[in-house]
Amino acid sequence: MNLQEIRAALRTVCAIPITPFRQDGSVDFALFRQLITRMVDGGIRVVTPNGNTSEFYSLNSIEHRRQLEDTSVGVAASRNQALILAGVGFDTQTASEMADMAQVIGAQAVMVHQPVHPYRSDDGWIAYHQAIAETIPTMGIVPYVRDPLISGATIKRLAELCPNFVGIKYAVPNPPLFAKIVREVGVDRLAWICGIAESWAPFFWVGGAQGFTSGLVNLTPHLSLEMQMALEAGNYPRAMELWAQIKPFEDLRARRDNANNVSAVKEAMAQMGLCERTVRPPISELAADERTEVSQILKLLVSELVS
Amino acid sequence: MNLQEIRAALRTVCAIPITPFRQDGSVDFALFRQLITRMVDGGIRVVTPNGNTSEFYSLNSIEHRRQLEDTSVGVAASRNQALILAGVGFDTQTASEMADMAQVIGAQAVMVHQPVHPYRSDDGWIAYHQAIAETIPTMGIVPYVRDPLISGATIKRLAELCPNFVGIKYAVPNPPLFAKIVREVGVDRLAWICGIAESWAPFFWVGGAQGFTSGLVNLTPHLSLEMQMALEAGNYPRAMELWAQIKPFEDLRARRDNANNVSAVKEAMAQMGLCERTVRPPISELAADERTEVSQILKLLVSELVS
Repeated sequence: MNLQEIRAALRTVCAIPITPFRQDGSVDFALFRQLITRMVDGGIRVVTPNGNTSEFYSLNSIEHRRQLEDTSVGVAASRNQALILAGVGFDTQTASEMADMAQVIGAQAVMVHQPVHPYRSDDGWIAYHQAIAETIPTMGIVPYVRDPLISGATIKRLAELCPNFVGIKYAVPNPPLFAKIVREVGVDRLAWICGIAESWAPFFWVGGAQGFTSGLVNLTPHLSLEMQMALEAGNYPRAMELWAQIKPFEDLRARRDNANNVSAVKEAMAQMGLCERTVRPPISELAADERTEVSQILKLLVSELVS
Repeated sequence: MNLQEIRAALRTVCAIPITPFRQDGSVDFALFRQLITRMVDGGIRVVTPNGNTSEFYSLNSIEHRRQLEDTSVGVAASRNQALILAGVGFDTQTASEMADMAQVIGAQAVMVHQPVHPYRSDDGWIAYHQAIAETIPTMGIVPYVRDPLISGATIKRLAELCPNFVGIKYAVPNPPLFAKIVREVGVDRLAWICGIAESWAPFFWVGGAQGFTSGLVNLTPHLSLEMQMALEAGNYPRAMELWAQIKPFEDLRARRDNANNVSAVKEAMAQMGLCERTVRPPISELAADERTEVSQILKLLVSELVS
């Protein structure tokens, strides 16, 4: 795929797979591959291993590498095809090495986690992404922006410097700010991905989004893919019907500043028999009352999938 | 030192050393050792290598290890003594390995960076710190708290579980919240360190702080040590005189959501002939106008040290 094709392919639902742990906390990579295959069989066209919903920051460097390799295996085992958008991060050198590794396993693009560093300048933000982009000139790079101080002007400068800056995962919960940035940079220059999933996708779509991230697709891809289709067709009423169906689950995930973000997905998957509910610190499993809530939500959300 | 002695020793100015880079961006470890020795000769009693002001998140794992070793060498070369409070972080396993390494080089305590993970639960926060604490039962652990959602009850539970939880670096800019937590946990149970330096230290002191972190001490330790002495003596008017003297520099560091935090310290040190002004992405060097400001501030702040 050339950069044009990668940019076009990113304009869809970007799945962030969970990392299944055994009850002892070790990664079940065989199951991980199966879950990736299931997801791509279900219609997902972009998979983002080593994302936040993958508990990226609770995995060590060997597990990061293995997740990448097994994503490639899991995608290849599907009857469908999908682009791999590999999460990379940490210091510049480590992120560049992770990007190299992503290239080796056949990923077409990298999603660059927001720099972990608590201090950032505009010039420093640009230099960080440019260094990674130049390591992999034929792959796409997609910065993950969670900081409202990163301006349209800064994003535009990076776009001018790096032809392989093909998309952005924008995760600041502020649709007017997003819309302003899209206009400053140009809607065609990048794949504009709403980085805060189904809850925000319809509102970001109005401002120029062309896809969105999703953790929900770990349970079932069809609601999210339907929402994407509705939004592509400009059918906001239908998108908002799906939004209303999905919202209780996303709200449960968002509680206590997102403490449940991954735990609620794994709880639902455990109830569906897909994986254990085990998570690693600094997050923890849902308590009994919230497990019951998940059961109730699941009945409405994916009734056909619950045994 | 036993845990009681470590806790007592932490009640002071906790210096966070910068990491000097050559103009090509590589670490000058020989200079790093000299700067550590200079700091401890100047009266600093707690040194925190691999802290945020050390650009921890822009260093790779080999550089983290080397910084720790060279802190030990730099402290040993001083005519004075200092406790090493080693910064550790990332996933549980990596943080525990870094704590092991800190023990090997003779550090007495570890400062646990806030988990990088964007999602945190109370139970998960406790499990994360407990796992690290249990790796090094004879060393002190000092969590770095930047999240206002970590409650007094949560901190108290960790204190009950881990006898070697000896101190906290509290960095939420909210003195009443801090004071409430101190009372909930007990002022004697921990060394209470204001984690946001001289700007906030006098206000945190009212609420129970017994020490504070400092990046300013990289330039000169004496103002910060004088502030600590004034606060220990309950001499708030004198502490606030020093505060007023220090504030313009700290304000320059805090600009643009702390983009200048490290760059301003290195700029001042460069003007004093102590090191290069080089920083690594995602931060950048000060622009010309702010360099001039640093010159003006330095004249007032450490006039005797500027050539």
